[in-house]
Amino acid sequence: MNGARALIRSLVASGVDVCFANPGTSEMHFVAALDAVPQMRAVLTLFEGVATGAADGYARMAGRPAATLLHLGPGLGNGLANLHNARKAGAPIVNIVGDHAIEHMKFDAPLQSDIGPVAGSVSGWVRHSASTADVGSDAAAAVAAAREGQVATLVLPADVSWAQDGGSVAEPLRPTPLQPADPDALRSAARALRSGEPCVLLVGGDATRADGLAAADRIAAATGATVLAETFPTRMERGAGVVPVERVAYPVDVALRQLDGARHLVLAGARPPVAFFAYPDKPSELAPADCEVHPLVPGRDGLATAALEELADLIAPGTTARTAELARPALPSGPLTVQTAATVVGALLPEGAVVVDEAVTSGTGLPAATATAPRHDWLTAVGGSIGWGLPAATGAAVACPDRPVWCLQADGSAMYTISALWTHAREALDITTVVYNNSAYAILRMELQHVGAAGLVENGGERARALFDLGRPDLDFVALAQGMGVPAVRVHTAEEMSEALRRASAEPGPHLVEAMVPPLVP
Amino acid sequence: MNGARALIRSLVASGVDVCFANPGTSEMHFVAALDAVPQMRAVLTLFEGVATGAADGYARMAGRPAATLLHLGPGLGNGLANLHNARKAGAPIVNIVGDHAIEHMKFDAPLQSDIGPVAGSVSGWVRHSASTADVGSDAAAAVAAAREGQVATLVLPADVSWAQDGGSVAEPLRPTPLQPADPDALRSAARALRSGEPCVLLVGGDATRADGLAAADRIAAATGATVLAETFPTRMERGAGVVPVERVAYPVDVALRQLDGARHLVLAGARPPVAFFAYPDKPSELAPADCEVHPLVPGRDGLATAALEELADLIAPGTTARTAELARPALPSGPLTVQTAATVVGALLPEGAVVVDEAVTSGTGLPAATATAPRHDWLTAVGGSIGWGLPAATGAAVACPDRPVWCLQADGSAMYTISALWTHAREALDITTVVYNNSAYAILRMELQHVGAAGLVENGGERARALFDLGRPDLDFVALAQGMGVPAVRVHTAEEMSEALRRASAEPGPHLVEAMVPPLVP
Repeated sequence: MNGARALIRSLVASGVDVCFANPGTSEMHFVAALDAVPQMRAVLTLFEGVATGAADGYARMAGRPAATLLHLGPGLGNGLANLHNARKAGAPIVNIVGDHAIEHMKFDAPLQSDIGPVAGSVSGWVRHSASTADVGSDAAAAVAAAREGQVATLVLPADVSWAQDGGSVAEPLRPTPLQPADPDALRSAARALRSGEPCVLLVGGDATRADGLAAADRIAAATGATVLAETFPTRMERGAGVVPVERVAYPVDVALRQLDGARHLVLAGARPPVAFFAYPDKPSELAPADCEVHPLVPGRDGLATAALEELADLIAPGTTARTAELARPALPSGPLTVQTAATVVGALLPEGAVVVDEAVTSGTGLPAATATAPRHDWLTAVGGSIGWGLPAATGAAVACPDRPVWCLQADGSAMYTISALWTHAREALDITTVVYNNSAYAILRMELQHVGAAGLVENGGERARALFDLGRPDLDFVALAQGMGVPAVRVHTAEEMSEALRRASAEPGPHLVEAMVPPLVP
Repeated sequence: MNGARALIRSLVASGVDVCFANPGTSEMHFVAALDAVPQMRAVLTLFEGVATGAADGYARMAGRPAATLLHLGPGLGNGLANLHNARKAGAPIVNIVGDHAIEHMKFDAPLQSDIGPVAGSVSGWVRHSASTADVGSDAAAAVAAAREGQVATLVLPADVSWAQDGGSVAEPLRPTPLQPADPDALRSAARALRSGEPCVLLVGGDATRADGLAAADRIAAATGATVLAETFPTRMERGAGVVPVERVAYPVDVALRQLDGARHLVLAGARPPVAFFAYPDKPSELAPADCEVHPLVPGRDGLATAALEELADLIAPGTTARTAELARPALPSGPLTVQTAATVVGALLPEGAVVVDEAVTSGTGLPAATATAPRHDWLTAVGGSIGWGLPAATGAAVACPDRPVWCLQADGSAMYTISALWTHAREALDITTVVYNNSAYAILRMELQHVGAAGLVENGGERARALFDLGRPDLDFVALAQGMGVPAVRVHTAEEMSEALRRASAEPGPHLVEAMVPPLVP
């Protein structure tokens, strides 16, 4: 069996049966092997950042890794930003990075580059496949490593792929078991929660799913602790039937108020909260300096939900959680604003939706407007690198073909990976994308003030402001979507947006609604 | 003076006065300083790969570096593929990569990543600016390093930028002088050329400009040597008044025939030619195994033209070169094909045009069709990473506001960095983009055969072929261009293409012509 087939069959044997691909010459044997292994579904993307973002969205919803197929160092580079997001999310991904044939590397051909350090910057596991005999077991090892909650990158020289004999299919490996909560850690947290002193219980990682939130709520009800979720959760369950939990706010001043006075911080799958960016004269650490920290499990990965449930049974045995009742907001009318647009989403979000949230400033009203919508999942760009939304929606829709995916997308961020729309159309994915077109990097207008730089501009600041301005020319997302085969409509009022979302929900396949909103920061 | 102003003023003092920018929060003080230093022109891009590709195109045409402004590790990642191309081209670029404030780094905030190794993979020079007092001299050192023909990356912590005092403007540094040709190297080359044995003189680097090509031709005329240029030149001068030189072909079999029988290979700014990719049962090295190699100057950089001129004066004193006469092909008629589309370009290419060539398989006929067009420059993606054309055209047009830029662009490659069109429109750049829409990654159909994988597909190969297929849905580049403010038209015949190019040339600002061509490989 040639190396390519051994690789693909080994991936399938280990449970990886989707590959988000943007191949080149060094990956041709992988491509040629696809017809021989129909269990592997290859999804073509027009840019590697779409492939890696899709693999992130897929992993979060499927609970297992997809593969990506990337073309040498530059292909990996194009995928790097969304691999960064996946790394921070603890999302399992298996990258297959095609490389030159081993004997060819020394000639420094045009596409030759040093892949290892670049791969290492986003991957918890990196291996260069050395021979066709190894490639099956390399694949199994990559999947096992990914399943520990990380990006695994297998660099695949072309000749390892093309050698006709010697490849064999590897059995799946058992991933390293997760660390359960240390009994001492549980006891320490229980003591803090029962102390009567102000306590914050911060949930992250797997604890932002319904069961984790329920356990956190039982503890809060019994102890008076405040439950908060991390600012950018990997996958948060929300809506009717789930405990509503507020997230730590992005603006530092608001976050400081949320945590003000806490004497104890119990961490369940979260790390101590820090400011997204540093700001002059503001702290990086958001919890009070004298606050005692009690982590239940190491880091973000692991069995945070199980630990929380154990803690809830210890502190509040026999109790049940206070979940949200279904209560949709009424459909608003009139001109679109950030607020009315959010209310329309809350009024119409379908049962079982997967929400991919990269709405940035235009999304300000969304959490409140959707808190008591029908039950849904909420995904965010955990690593903060924009250009994640449209790709992640791609992967979520591949993982969940029976669930509607709503991609709530800021305009500036959309442009980084806009070609994802083409894959939405090609795969006929049930994705409704709302692009909030406010003609600005509105968040940077806000950040210019937050970092104290707004007062430093001279001569009216016209040249500085120009770098936040997405007008001149105005982007037309309807034209962009139609250019890639996605039906689209532009809306200016709440009524038009409601009508457009209803129509999109009623029809299968992808749709785009361009919501013309005034920027939150003018 | 704060760090940001010291940085920008030092860049300007060292001759860097254009910055291709995609900023974020950590770059806000840089942005705020722009109005105080009007000598620095900031050009906004919607994706970092556009910024870095633009800096590459700019450097090649301006002969000096532009800066880029990138947002932390993920921003650098998005720019990596075109920095790879720039590195291979020896194009000088100064990257300014904003980073977290130094004290903030230890908290592993969402956007924290290890920038150093990623920067190192594409940069000949990397420095982390350690203090506001240093940032001016860091900038001067970065420019000097870039001017040696490489990518220089300065990582700029936010607090180094924002500290209000201590920054100062640094004087420009003198770059390290280039290595002139070693007299022994010249003598060895002269001996080979006069030996009467078959000789190939391979020109690259700066020797693909008119003066280098003229010197090479004088040598060839006197000795019977064959002159070839490297396959993907950084900047090649061509057309009427310039010596016409064939390039080493991309397909290995053709390249082997070009070099067949050579006993001596004289290298002027080129390296020994190697296959772009390895192929089973084909050699990586294209020159015959027993061919003697004579490099005039070290590597690609350096004074290749000066060395060639010295050699020409030694071997063929007092001679002049045989340059091409103006001879445009007649305008063709009928349905567009790869060939008729190339002939239209040859018939209409304006005097002094800068051609940015990422036409891939659809560009097959272009070199012949334009060889005797009016004098022009021809730029290619030296590192082979696609998604370079539209960004490089951006930079070339900024560098040469008085010259028309023709961007000859394949469809698949265009989609990697399609948002460059928005910058074309915003800056009203005089760029005429031809997108060859053949609905395919046609080169991969060819490569599947070349690597010997075409015979391996099973079950009709439908799943393999799907990964080369850009139809389902068809891309509509007119809609995409219009969505970003660039006037566009789709053409199906040679007559329509001629008319569209004439109209584009007559009007200032950007235009896009979508040329519907059948794929070279069906």
